[in-house]
Amino acid sequence: MGEEQLFPPSPEDTHTQLMKATYEALCEHGYSELTIQRIGDEFPKSKSLIYQHYDGKDDLLVAFLEFLLEQFEADVPTDGFADAREHMFSIIDHALPESLDSGHEEFLGAVEALRGQAPHNETYREQFRKLNDFYRTHTADVIRAGIDQGVFRDVDPERTAGYVVTTIHGARSLRVTVDSHEPIREARTELETYVREELVASDAEKLN
Amino acid sequence: MGEEQLFPPSPEDTHTQLMKATYEALCEHGYSELTIQRIGDEFPKSKSLIYQHYDGKDDLLVAFLEFLLEQFEADVPTDGFADAREHMFSIIDHALPESLDSGHEEFLGAVEALRGQAPHNETYREQFRKLNDFYRTHTADVIRAGIDQGVFRDVDPERTAGYVVTTIHGARSLRVTVDSHEPIREARTELETYVREELVASDAEKLN
Repeated sequence: MGEEQLFPPSPEDTHTQLMKATYEALCEHGYSELTIQRIGDEFPKSKSLIYQHYDGKDDLLVAFLEFLLEQFEADVPTDGFADAREHMFSIIDHALPESLDSGHEEFLGAVEALRGQAPHNETYREQFRKLNDFYRTHTADVIRAGIDQGVFRDVDPERTAGYVVTTIHGARSLRVTVDSHEPIREARTELETYVREELVASDAEKLN
Repeated sequence: MGEEQLFPPSPEDTHTQLMKATYEALCEHGYSELTIQRIGDEFPKSKSLIYQHYDGKDDLLVAFLEFLLEQFEADVPTDGFADAREHMFSIIDHALPESLDSGHEEFLGAVEALRGQAPHNETYREQFRKLNDFYRTHTADVIRAGIDQGVFRDVDPERTAGYVVTTIHGARSLRVTVDSHEPIREARTELETYVREELVASDAEKLN
């Protein structure tokens, strides 16, 4: 997900404009160099509107994380898959693409910069917990559907989903903090193998 | 790894004292609230020594990451294991313990706070790349030894090590940014299964 997926080119409502300005300033300056002033520079309306509604940059960035979660919840594809197996491969492909365009890389870097605030700030932790719970629940639902369809083995949906989501997070976090696409490539290959070998029921199991 | 493993209780040399002061101030204040002044408050010698040697807090924090890597390189156990299988389980156990004491949790939070600087700062990325390369190389060496011993299958040591290291990173990062021990518990269980089922050679393979 990059800027084009998150925002229309010229949003009209003030909240979306402010979220877009926050995102652009965060991508450009990172967390530590970010100021309300710099967010205001990207905002097409009066800066005083920002100060009226937000107590400071952290308040605005937490609202930005809430906005992200709403976008994910609205955009997640829930149908159009032949079966749960195809759905799982699509999740892996979407989260761990063969290559990243610069917009997607900027997005991952911006989220990682905010994540660095979480260990020492409960409000950030709460937002990241909600994001992680969303990924986990969505993935567990797909696994549960696959078990019901007889496509997947009778695994623990929550534990399996947790493991997949954790590995995806690790690869995406390393992608933008160690300057290498290898973690994403390796995790993609290994998770695809994991789905095929550990999750997909064999023909013999399907007949039972 | 926590404060007791990283530092002697009362270090005598100035560099170790300064690294300990940096670590304590980082644990207490997080990255964004950290100042040289606050590091100086934990430092038993004159604050002017800090300003003489470091250009600012980022300069000092990058030196702290270099110090961490040196500690890891000095402390990593390389022998005393019956075979590579036991060594791999020890790596997983060490990186993903059943529970974390508060010192270990503080340590993971401090590293994660610094990692948040990496997407927008090349000097931080370089340090995190070196740390990640160290974990990967060490794990790949253990896997290669296991293949030589006939204990492990003939897998790609680098790719397998990369996957293990990435999953471990994901679980530790989530531990301190979403306030849950579940990611560590799940990754531990699944990686142990992965070693037993994907890595360890079956008796039949050993006889070939």
